[in-house]
Amino acid sequence: MKVIKTIEEARREIGIWRKQGLTVGLVPTMGYLHNGHKSLIEKAKAENDKVVVSVFVNPIQFGPTEDLDKYPRDIERDSVIAEEAGASFIFNPEPAEMYKSTFSTYVDCEGITEGLCGSKRPGHFQGVCTVVSKLFNIIKPNRAYFGEKDAQQLAVIKRMVRDLNFDVEIVPCPIVREEDGLAMSSRNVYLSQEERRAALILSKSLTRSKELLKNGEKETKKILEEIIKVIETESLSKIDYVEIVDSEDLAPVSTVEKPVLIALAVFIGKVRLIDNFTFIG
Amino acid sequence: MKVIKTIEEARREIGIWRKQGLTVGLVPTMGYLHNGHKSLIEKAKAENDKVVVSVFVNPIQFGPTEDLDKYPRDIERDSVIAEEAGASFIFNPEPAEMYKSTFSTYVDCEGITEGLCGSKRPGHFQGVCTVVSKLFNIIKPNRAYFGEKDAQQLAVIKRMVRDLNFDVEIVPCPIVREEDGLAMSSRNVYLSQEERRAALILSKSLTRSKELLKNGEKETKKILEEIIKVIETESLSKIDYVEIVDSEDLAPVSTVEKPVLIALAVFIGKVRLIDNFTFIG
Repeated sequence: MKVIKTIEEARREIGIWRKQGLTVGLVPTMGYLHNGHKSLIEKAKAENDKVVVSVFVNPIQFGPTEDLDKYPRDIERDSVIAEEAGASFIFNPEPAEMYKSTFSTYVDCEGITEGLCGSKRPGHFQGVCTVVSKLFNIIKPNRAYFGEKDAQQLAVIKRMVRDLNFDVEIVPCPIVREEDGLAMSSRNVYLSQEERRAALILSKSLTRSKELLKNGEKETKKILEEIIKVIETESLSKIDYVEIVDSEDLAPVSTVEKPVLIALAVFIGKVRLIDNFTFIG
Repeated sequence: MKVIKTIEEARREIGIWRKQGLTVGLVPTMGYLHNGHKSLIEKAKAENDKVVVSVFVNPIQFGPTEDLDKYPRDIERDSVIAEEAGASFIFNPEPAEMYKSTFSTYVDCEGITEGLCGSKRPGHFQGVCTVVSKLFNIIKPNRAYFGEKDAQQLAVIKRMVRDLNFDVEIVPCPIVREEDGLAMSSRNVYLSQEERRAALILSKSLTRSKELLKNGEKETKKILEEIIKVIETESLSKIDYVEIVDSEDLAPVSTVEKPVLIALAVFIGKVRLIDNFTFIG
């Protein structure tokens, strides 16, 4: 698997494809690829001639107390997975290649970034929007693939693409889960055996809310109470947030009338995990 | 002269050019074209197969007390000038075409926007960076042409292009002046006959500072004092700012050692005019 570390070389490679009239799919990840990422790459490969997988761990989307330094990295493993899934090259620049010392331009998406992870991780979505803008300008993909596990990220990127007129089709991809229901995440590697078992409480609590919604419950207050009750049965868990919001603009809703996103972030020990689903009705 | 009002139509037209392998130059203006703009369009035409002139008056770069509503517009005249200069089409979208009611994504360039016009016009460069990003994504030019009269804008756009990796070459173009030295500006049309005469004080004061620099003066404090003294001889003038800054990062300098930008903004009556020059040494 070819690993490209400079913007110039990535541009050169993509320039050749462009001259041949080939289409390009981009899968922006932070590496340590799992089957969720693999499903994105496979979908990208099915829909484009060429696929670029970025594994750049973007420092500016981590807060000062977050896990940038210990974020898991394994370029050898990533290469094998990306190759199997059909990627054309991995983009793995050093931070200094992406951010010069005098770097000072940021992309901000307002409003939609206020709740959910945005309120808990100040600056996170500015970092995401900025790096994704950069990747779009470097790779110039026809399509870019984002997992629905990061539901707010997906909504923010869609909004940014619309607002700034990026000529990129954003393709959402469903959450991939372990057999027992845990949403796949690079951060799952942090979990001890006991925490791994406790982490099931996220998907379990969402399953409970899905039942309520299917039975016709419309009051989000009641649904939220029930989710919280389920999560609190797990002693290793600590809720970061549980929210029910409009699936498009992510504004909180009190009654389920239009499609809603039910999203949560829960600490299992020191590991912060997220999960969600969208209820169309 | 073809005038295109929708993003979709602009994309369609440019898509045809791209398939033919043609290069595209973009001249972003706010219309009411003068000979300064014309020189940009002519340069763009000399260096590219096709030239797009945007005349979109960008509401989000105007402050609440600024001249958005009365900003001069004349699409008929602009069409004639753009056609003569070799443009392929004029891009003239309505504000609602560029900014949906739920628009919420902004591009910010920090640091470099703090002094000069940035400190006097809060939000101005956020508006500029955001609309230029949009135009780059819509038109996807090979090259974009900016006048040196808006020296800070040029520096900000260069920084933004570098930081966000836009694949666009920024081409600076020299200030075009009236015979008596007044820098051409769409806002010159606001000036009464008396103010038009008084407005010469901007270029006169810069000429005086150029003399000092050529005679070896290095202390910016002395040069600034002299500029201010010259401007204050004109009773209709009111200084908004006079600054001497590093020509690249726009940080204030006390001694002229590297190339500097000498820039000023002066109200003549109610009309705010800007002028500048860069001293290489």
